[in-house]
Amino acid sequence: MNDRILLPVSMGVLERIEPTTWRVSASQDVAYEVRQVDGLFSLACRELLACGGSEFSSLRQVVVIDERVDALYGDKIRAYYNHHEVTAYILTLPVSEESKDLDAALVIVRHLESVGVLRRSDPIIAIGGGVLLDLVGFAAGLYRRGVPYIKVPTNGMAMWDAAIGVKTAVNVLGRRNRLGSYHAPAIALLDRSFLRTVERRDLSNGMGELLKLAVIKDARLFNLLEHHSAMLLNSRFQDPIVAPEVIARAVDGMLEELAPNLWERTLERSVDFGHSFGPLLEMKALPELLHGEAVALDVLLSCWMARDRGMLSEEDVQRVIKVMRDMQLPLRHRFFEQPELLMEALMDTMRHRNGQQRLPLPNGIGCCGFVNNVRLDDLKAAAREMANVGA
Amino acid sequence: MNDRILLPVSMGVLERIEPTTWRVSASQDVAYEVRQVDGLFSLACRELLACGGSEFSSLRQVVVIDERVDALYGDKIRAYYNHHEVTAYILTLPVSEESKDLDAALVIVRHLESVGVLRRSDPIIAIGGGVLLDLVGFAAGLYRRGVPYIKVPTNGMAMWDAAIGVKTAVNVLGRRNRLGSYHAPAIALLDRSFLRTVERRDLSNGMGELLKLAVIKDARLFNLLEHHSAMLLNSRFQDPIVAPEVIARAVDGMLEELAPNLWERTLERSVDFGHSFGPLLEMKALPELLHGEAVALDVLLSCWMARDRGMLSEEDVQRVIKVMRDMQLPLRHRFFEQPELLMEALMDTMRHRNGQQRLPLPNGIGCCGFVNNVRLDDLKAAAREMANVGA
Repeated sequence: MNDRILLPVSMGVLERIEPTTWRVSASQDVAYEVRQVDGLFSLACRELLACGGSEFSSLRQVVVIDERVDALYGDKIRAYYNHHEVTAYILTLPVSEESKDLDAALVIVRHLESVGVLRRSDPIIAIGGGVLLDLVGFAAGLYRRGVPYIKVPTNGMAMWDAAIGVKTAVNVLGRRNRLGSYHAPAIALLDRSFLRTVERRDLSNGMGELLKLAVIKDARLFNLLEHHSAMLLNSRFQDPIVAPEVIARAVDGMLEELAPNLWERTLERSVDFGHSFGPLLEMKALPELLHGEAVALDVLLSCWMARDRGMLSEEDVQRVIKVMRDMQLPLRHRFFEQPELLMEALMDTMRHRNGQQRLPLPNGIGCCGFVNNVRLDDLKAAAREMANVGA
Repeated sequence: MNDRILLPVSMGVLERIEPTTWRVSASQDVAYEVRQVDGLFSLACRELLACGGSEFSSLRQVVVIDERVDALYGDKIRAYYNHHEVTAYILTLPVSEESKDLDAALVIVRHLESVGVLRRSDPIIAIGGGVLLDLVGFAAGLYRRGVPYIKVPTNGMAMWDAAIGVKTAVNVLGRRNRLGSYHAPAIALLDRSFLRTVERRDLSNGMGELLKLAVIKDARLFNLLEHHSAMLLNSRFQDPIVAPEVIARAVDGMLEELAPNLWERTLERSVDFGHSFGPLLEMKALPELLHGEAVALDVLLSCWMARDRGMLSEEDVQRVIKVMRDMQLPLRHRFFEQPELLMEALMDTMRHRNGQQRLPLPNGIGCCGFVNNVRLDDLKAAAREMANVGA
């Protein structure tokens, strides 16, 4: 029953390299799975049942669920657990980017403590969007220095972004994800049927991350988005042909970038595209801008900068704008039209990139380059274009 | 200058094991050094200078220091940095077991944010006892998902325990170290001369961890403690012969246990000896019992249980008591005389050991065995002995 709980394997050695100096060298293996499933809470599905169970009770599961998801799926989930005679300890949590903080993490910790979660064999099932997954991952990563958890994403952003990586986070001091950890889930279970009930703006928001990945890494994905974004949005990703391919390509592309660089040893990360100016601005704009909306605006700003450097054609920028329109993403926000503010945001991001810009820019659609010499004048030119979009 | 900042190296691969299932497998290498140094802040010592410096300024260091240590050594430390023309951003923090919490960690995070710490090349220098090192490690481990830090222990407990491992911690919900992480320092620099100014009770407290390690792992160390504990305490570990050997044996023994099990893959840990009943009880007793005092009482209780099982002779238990006297450690506390409370503490610890007792008991002085069948009657018998000590 516990073979799903992929425990890190570790080894290590101690050397005494001088009479007064010891050196500890150790290596930790981490492995996790990402799986597409259909109807996770249909009675016949046993995916989740295979994941849990403590040594104390015959079968129990500890669940943390987004309040809005509970309202939509709570009855079904409870019926599922009842049917399978699993005692579910469910914490329903109201979450938002504004309350993604240490207090919310502590509410989760209190739940784990009250249930008496065991250190290894009571994986926490996190069901919700990106904010909930980040929060549960953060709490699970710290509780007893790390207990296993399972991610069940319920919106687009979470399905092809938050759920499939290993980062956890809370916001502090008005800074997005300023505290966090690398804590791999045992497994991430992606059930596309959840998208059926996602609100239009929320789904558009998630598509911002698809746009990012397509522009910087996957020309084929960009083509799919160019032709089908409106349909995907209208059908809530429920069509049987395009949606599965889009999701699989997005997951595959993200994991391809993450796997060799799981702990961000390399700070040149193509998946940071769209995340250079946005983090500061979206926190400043809260609750006006959702994360994926800020990502998309950052993508567009970066595309203008790439055009000015001859890395991207004007035509390609217009294609990006067209996809953003189809995705019903915002094309403008006043913060992205203020060069000084953009520079401040870049400076903050530079500390995260150890003092350099390491700015990912598209080198043609689907390819990535990094630049380190963005000046205020460059931002002024790009900001002017941002102010002219749709004018 | 940055070769001291031993960055984790990582590698990882992505496999698509089924059309709908991906598996990420990655490995993270961690290495750190523990070094004994003399006079870390004497002007000629360059140990710390080799550790720091950002890419922005020519040379700067970010320091978090225990308020009591600052009162004693602050002038010297500031003079040291001035002499070497290093800009030191010093946060002075009042710390205690009672305030080892998320709020204190957040004060440190605020300092890092206000300095504008870079992600990789601004190691945080933590100067203080175990509580301060745990707190700084916790904050450094979470800030931007982990920035490097350096441990400079200033009391005994920290020197041969907190400083040389990779655990970080805060207390929450009245539970000791309930939240934490594994975040290896770049280096731990052990300067025995700090012990000169440690208060008697604080030094006795630290010796509790020496006792633990000696009884469960190192008969030679136990012999040294048996003959020299009174002298070590009186001389504040400043004698040139015995103190260095005791400290080196303790460091060596701890690291020998930690290195192959850095992430606590194995929950049978001999160094958990003395940490089975104490964690709950010392939190309940705060501020009456210091950590090392609770460890020593736990050691003694466990010794009685080992005697009752024929693992330890009565004579050896009396030797342990004699060493505790020499160390001026408390021999009694009412909580260790209440079997029901002891069982409650063990139950809590069992959750940390994934549902089993995995109780380390000495199998003769210097050897460790694990038991899983402690019953209330066993605790009653041991508690009776605890109440009779010194009677």
